[in-house]
Amino acid sequence: MRYVRFQVGTHVAYGVLGGDVVREITAPPYGAYKVTDRTHKLSEVKLLAPIVPGKIVAIGLNYKSHLGNREAPKVPEGFYKTPTSVIGTEEPVRIPQAALQEKVHMQPEGEMVFIMGKRAKNVKKAEALSYVLGYTCGNDVSARDWQRNDLQWWRAKSSDTFSPMGPVIVTDLDPSKMQLICRINGKVVQEQSTGDLVHDVPAIIEFISSAITLEPGDAIYTGTPGAPGDIHPGDVVEVEISGIGVLRNPIEAE
Amino acid sequence: MRYVRFQVGTHVAYGVLGGDVVREITAPPYGAYKVTDRTHKLSEVKLLAPIVPGKIVAIGLNYKSHLGNREAPKVPEGFYKTPTSVIGTEEPVRIPQAALQEKVHMQPEGEMVFIMGKRAKNVKKAEALSYVLGYTCGNDVSARDWQRNDLQWWRAKSSDTFSPMGPVIVTDLDPSKMQLICRINGKVVQEQSTGDLVHDVPAIIEFISSAITLEPGDAIYTGTPGAPGDIHPGDVVEVEISGIGVLRNPIEAE
Repeated sequence: MRYVRFQVGTHVAYGVLGGDVVREITAPPYGAYKVTDRTHKLSEVKLLAPIVPGKIVAIGLNYKSHLGNREAPKVPEGFYKTPTSVIGTEEPVRIPQAALQEKVHMQPEGEMVFIMGKRAKNVKKAEALSYVLGYTCGNDVSARDWQRNDLQWWRAKSSDTFSPMGPVIVTDLDPSKMQLICRINGKVVQEQSTGDLVHDVPAIIEFISSAITLEPGDAIYTGTPGAPGDIHPGDVVEVEISGIGVLRNPIEAE
Repeated sequence: MRYVRFQVGTHVAYGVLGGDVVREITAPPYGAYKVTDRTHKLSEVKLLAPIVPGKIVAIGLNYKSHLGNREAPKVPEGFYKTPTSVIGTEEPVRIPQAALQEKVHMQPEGEMVFIMGKRAKNVKKAEALSYVLGYTCGNDVSARDWQRNDLQWWRAKSSDTFSPMGPVIVTDLDPSKMQLICRINGKVVQEQSTGDLVHDVPAIIEFISSAITLEPGDAIYTGTPGAPGDIHPGDVVEVEISGIGVLRNPIEAE
């Protein structure tokens, strides 16, 4: 299944995508939704972020290619991104005025994101994938100097618009066999298989859910490979994952 | 006004507290609620956390008495606590099994918490207090070894039950003139005036809202004074703030 969230005029709804037709459903895709007979052409809706997460957990240092001289962490290293930082495909990432004035280095981070389908606490690896609704593309936009100098990564990773997600949530994919690509202005800056994750999706769910309850709709950013370059107003970032599609966001100044 | 959130049987609602009578209101206290004629005796309801925040921002290193050898930060140092970690007064803080097995040092942090009443982005200090709905007591429960050793404070500060709040939200208080006390088993372990905050409520709102949008109902933990002691299963922690009341939570093993 391919799930979207979309807007037509002032009407916002979830839907199932088949070909170029969006069919409305009556509740979020992790809920007991009903499929309606209301359909729209994909070209006539505005796609929104495909979910409204109650919380977002992100995993740091989770590809060897991103580690540089650092050792791979023994356990998944979590941090939070705020739901208010979420935007959908084609929406602009706006670099905060304070970041522009301080000449903060801004970078995209192409990531595979999974969405929880069920409440999860103390879930073991063997059962973990049955708690996942599906997968989407994410961009963990990062203000590097704030990330380095602040006590914690609150604004470095969660300033408004810093969490693009989309365009669709796809179910029934193998999260260890996706090809992840990130492009800046069409040039590939990150490219790796999700099979190279240091801690894979089941390991992330087991470890995170040992401390915190994951709720349906929660989003988990799984980490970024390699070393993406800097971005500036006027650039366009695309995150593409095989079997999902392309998340595309122009970069603007706030 | 004194706002509560409460449960009677399976019914959950917000209310206004007058004396020992809770009067139901039709929406969260930051919304366009109506006062109903449904009343309950305070002794006959179970108080819940007084708000369901969309997000929680906490401020670190915000009392000189808590800094030790560290310099006072030039700007408010934010981090996030997750809404799924929120509990109300009298609910148990449950120390995760993993923390018990690793003999992680657990500490309470008594804090003044303010609740946003309006959406705030790029709000200046002079207007900031008009965006606040009111104030409550908070306990920023902290797993010290995880706080020290993890890359970020995701489970150190947000494991399930690590964010007690309550018992009530009180409006029209002066956030620079509250006396904050934290007790473990009746013994005072923290005691300070909120007038001693390094960055006060208007400064916090100005700085945080320069990067992220604060939404109605969002909760901001303002920091903790002094050096609280360790807690263990069987202990009871109370956070008391003048003009608000007492937030009381027993400590249990998960």
